Amino acid sequence: MSDSVATAVAHPNIAFIKYWGNRDDSLRLPANGSISMNLGALETRTTVAFSSACRSDRVSVNGSLSEGEALIRVANFMDRIRSLAGEKRFAEIESQNNFPIGAGIASSAAAFAALALAGSTAAGLHLNEAELSRLARLGSGSACRSIPTGFCEWLAGDSDEESIAVSIAPPDHWALTDIIAVVSARHKEVGSSMGHQRAMTSPYQAIRVATAPERLLECRTAILKRDFDRLASISEKDSTMMHGVMMTQEPPLFYWEPASLKIMKNIMQWRREGIPCFFTLDAGPNVHVLCPKEVEKELKGRLGNLSEVENLLSSGPGDAAHLVD
Amino acid sequence: MSDSVATAVAHPNIAFIKYWGNRDDSLRLPANGSISMNLGALETRTTVAFSSACRSDRVSVNGSLSEGEALIRVANFMDRIRSLAGEKRFAEIESQNNFPIGAGIASSAAAFAALALAGSTAAGLHLNEAELSRLARLGSGSACRSIPTGFCEWLAGDSDEESIAVSIAPPDHWALTDIIAVVSARHKEVGSSMGHQRAMTSPYQAIRVATAPERLLECRTAILKRDFDRLASISEKDSTMMHGVMMTQEPPLFYWEPASLKIMKNIMQWRREGIPCFFTLDAGPNVHVLCPKEVEKELKGRLGNLSEVENLLSSGPGDAAHLVD
Repeated sequence: MSDSVATAVAHPNIAFIKYWGNRDDSLRLPANGSISMNLGALETRTTVAFSSACRSDRVSVNGSLSEGEALIRVANFMDRIRSLAGEKRFAEIESQNNFPIGAGIASSAAAFAALALAGSTAAGLHLNEAELSRLARLGSGSACRSIPTGFCEWLAGDSDEESIAVSIAPPDHWALTDIIAVVSARHKEVGSSMGHQRAMTSPYQAIRVATAPERLLECRTAILKRDFDRLASISEKDSTMMHGVMMTQEPPLFYWEPASLKIMKNIMQWRREGIPCFFTLDAGPNVHVLCPKEVEKELKGRLGNLSEVENLLSSGPGDAAHLVD
Repeated sequence: MSDSVATAVAHPNIAFIKYWGNRDDSLRLPANGSISMNLGALETRTTVAFSSACRSDRVSVNGSLSEGEALIRVANFMDRIRSLAGEKRFAEIESQNNFPIGAGIASSAAAFAALALAGSTAAGLHLNEAELSRLARLGSGSACRSIPTGFCEWLAGDSDEESIAVSIAPPDHWALTDIIAVVSARHKEVGSSMGHQRAMTSPYQAIRVATAPERLLECRTAILKRDFDRLASISEKDSTMMHGVMMTQEPPLFYWEPASLKIMKNIMQWRREGIPCFFTLDAGPNVHVLCPKEVEKELKGRLGNLSEVENLLSSGPGDAAHLVD
């Protein structure tokens, strides 16, 4: 049955204004809105094939069969698609990433964006962008931002229907580069889902959330005006604010490694020397170094000289999640 | 004139609940109260000699003559003593530290505590502990905590008169050790006085201050009950909360170095392994590792094995600032 198979590609995204903590954990309604850029050079490619021969959902990621909680999470997500589509069959799901997973490169965002599109299409649904974004969000919050194109804003929303991401500028709006300084590809000790659920135990979470609208406005404006200095200033502040919440949660989450801090301090120093660049870190130790495309080579050279850097990945803005043959 | 000379010793202190930010910068009225332990093994010894032969105050610290802002700060402090005492003469001031200055070991606290006692005595004043604490505070906020003995609480107070430190337990109340892992004795780039004045530019300062009374109560109780786990938990949280404010100020202050973070992470890991210990950091990169005296040797061995540690200092609780012959 050819209409029971679909393949989709989605890109991870890097947030300038961060998502941390939920208003509703089961619906993944975020405590605050967020803004990100899709990373076009990195991708997850996922094929979903429903088949009456399957006795359960079977999931492989980069050739390894998933099991335990990772499998349950995908199966629960597929149950939602089956329920929407009236589909009874289980599925064979194959996913390939071209980047390391579980180390702060938002692998779950690209994974659930690609799965939402491939899974819903294979099940015969024709969801629009808003519906896809909403569906992807239920798998992994930040996955909703990997559905639209380019620079995206996740509108926190007051309900399941409203909490979706929209594109605020296409990929060719601004030639920014994200250089990812990989300091550790070890799987992180604390996944971010559990961390989100503990965000409110930090004394700083409430005020971080309350002041997010100001930072969202500043970030959105900086992107629309292509004002690098404004984007640098608000992004570094927002990243450090999020890690300030994480480190004061109970139990505390220290995603920064000594190597991360070394790179962050270098970035601040290089910016004082006149090189446009800034750092931002998600729930992991890798440092995302954003810069205009023109200085990418210079910064890669400097970053590559740091013994703390294991590997460098880089990417410009990426397009929307899309189907492929 | 024998009554115009006096020598005093004062110890630096390490705060478990931190002082950061002022309600009144000129009076150094702190935004919140704080709790600390004097460090008996470290000391500043200061001699003040008023003499009609002096044309201005002359200050030497560890044998080097002070000049510029450091000299002006001491001269302003001496003006205050002269005004209180009706003293017209300038003074020769010699100060010796047995620990490195300017790298987060609160050298200014011990310095202004010793200077308050030696200076006021040499000027013929007989100030009581509260008056001395208040005077020391005007030189350097945390210096007021180096006046009383043992474990001290700085009561924020609503006025110059009320903002003083009091002892909440004597040195022999609890055999705690502070092992200072020195990661850099370089003079820090940003002194803390300027940093205090910018504290309110952090979105986190107001809530840090508003919730300080809960942490003060928890810390005071932990000390009075000699409850190490409670002291560990509240102290690490308060330290990280202060650095969370510093790093989100404008401009951001990153006192943590990669080496600091490495040591902090080791301390958290060693505690999970069952060794009672916790970290706290002042406005500098050195990590203060607190532990019961019994595990000092074990921890010094472990810390000494880290390549990031340049030097180890250690101290138990210290007594009050006092006069010496």
